[in-house]
Amino acid sequence: MIETVISSASQEVIIGPERPFVIIGERINPTGRKLLAEEMAAGDFSRVEQDAIAQVQAGARMLDVNAGIPLADEPAILAKAIQVVQAVTNVPISIDSSIVAALEAGLEVYQGKALLNSVTGEDERLEQVLPLVKKYNAAVVAISNDETGISEDPDVRFAVAKKIVERAADFGIPSSDIVVDPLVMPIGAINQAGKQVFQLIARLQNELAVNTTCGASNISFGLPQRNGINGHFLSMAMVAGLTSAITNPIHDEVNQAVKAGDVLMGRDPNCTRWIAKYADRSTERESARGGRRRGRNRQG
Amino acid sequence: MIETVISSASQEVIIGPERPFVIIGERINPTGRKLLAEEMAAGDFSRVEQDAIAQVQAGARMLDVNAGIPLADEPAILAKAIQVVQAVTNVPISIDSSIVAALEAGLEVYQGKALLNSVTGEDERLEQVLPLVKKYNAAVVAISNDETGISEDPDVRFAVAKKIVERAADFGIPSSDIVVDPLVMPIGAINQAGKQVFQLIARLQNELAVNTTCGASNISFGLPQRNGINGHFLSMAMVAGLTSAITNPIHDEVNQAVKAGDVLMGRDPNCTRWIAKYADRSTERESARGGRRRGRNRQG
Repeated sequence: MIETVISSASQEVIIGPERPFVIIGERINPTGRKLLAEEMAAGDFSRVEQDAIAQVQAGARMLDVNAGIPLADEPAILAKAIQVVQAVTNVPISIDSSIVAALEAGLEVYQGKALLNSVTGEDERLEQVLPLVKKYNAAVVAISNDETGISEDPDVRFAVAKKIVERAADFGIPSSDIVVDPLVMPIGAINQAGKQVFQLIARLQNELAVNTTCGASNISFGLPQRNGINGHFLSMAMVAGLTSAITNPIHDEVNQAVKAGDVLMGRDPNCTRWIAKYADRSTERESARGGRRRGRNRQG
Repeated sequence: MIETVISSASQEVIIGPERPFVIIGERINPTGRKLLAEEMAAGDFSRVEQDAIAQVQAGARMLDVNAGIPLADEPAILAKAIQVVQAVTNVPISIDSSIVAALEAGLEVYQGKALLNSVTGEDERLEQVLPLVKKYNAAVVAISNDETGISEDPDVRFAVAKKIVERAADFGIPSSDIVVDPLVMPIGAINQAGKQVFQLIARLQNELAVNTTCGASNISFGLPQRNGINGHFLSMAMVAGLTSAITNPIHDEVNQAVKAGDVLMGRDPNCTRWIAKYADRSTERESARGGRRRGRNRQG
């Protein structure tokens, strides 16, 4: 059983194939959000607080926190943002930075067992980040690209993930503490991007025994009605074995996709969570239709 | 390559794993539609015509036609309904009845190569229906239940499907002319119904080399927000290998699920059909977000 345990001071979240899918809320990230970037750089974290609360209310089981603001003191801002988020919510955090000093600043203030986001397959990054994962007893997102960039070949991406898992083992980090991001390519540019990533997710689960996560919205880059594609990508990837995603639970199509995926993968016993969410919507007209299809077990 | 060819007088539809998913419109069926039943029994087929046209406009590539009305002359009504539908649309038809005489009456008037819906695994049914399939050069929906009813055990349902395929071979019917309905159980009653049917669909494709279809809406029986479950069931089943479904293309959630599934399975090259359908919806706000996740290939 592949189970990745992440925690805050008071809550534990387990990512795993037999567990409800874990949405890691993506909103606390200043990239592409100019106003948020300005506020965070100026020490105003009110929008961070609001985004944290709103995402948890919408169904995020964890929150990704990123403070990547050009020319700003990212380690200090990230540490502050993590403290602010931990003050207003109880969910565990994914500490998200491409700067090692910022990752460490975040780990220093974090209460619980964090998910460190991320390490790539470059040797230099592995040597810098894996000791932090071990020192702070964190879990880590492993992104399957390396010195050569992101390969379009899923076999190469698998090999990079395998390398990271093996290197982590050298540091005493078990594969259960590694969550691989197989990297999602835009389907508008690469026609086979969906099938490729579904197969890669299945291989990662079956051959490397790791959990997986992804930034799902990249799949729909450049297309209209993106949330429709994003939602179905998530539920379809769940069939392949995807166990978590960094995405936006406030989008109803994404949220519903994950809830429906949990129902259909048998991870919402008695459909309790689905019914709690949607019981107010009318079912009458539909029931008649369902009754009809049941009529297929008929005698002629 | 598993390809099932169905045709009308002027159109050919191919069901297969590398082809766009085939929606077989389910609406022309008087079961549970009292007004339609009365009209059809009285020789009024205006609603049949409307349902045919509306479903094809919404995206049905084939139409299921059923005339199961208690105490009515089903063979005559079914034959008439088929003629009416063939007069107003060009799509191939699934001739749907549990009465063998009605199936034959439908086949007699049908122009093209029909999909006969259905044969079950009972010996008596096989002996009655398979000769018709052969005589009229039709394809056939094989429903995986038999004398013992519908088994909850997917291995038993697989065995029934295998028996039908083998018996059909005795009649000179190739497996490419058999489309298996693995039978979808309500997820509200059977927690593993989704995973079971996904595995069964994959086995049917890999081990029996047959295409599959199903009445998808049974999965959500008794639940609220049924179309949300139905839509995700369809796209998730496409990952497992489902190649067609008897469903309602007029429901936007179902229609969008199939279109998104085709995109993500690489069966909508350049996303042409998706873009044609959804290009009018705003993409601006989303594009910014997509751009952010692309930022994961970053340097630290």
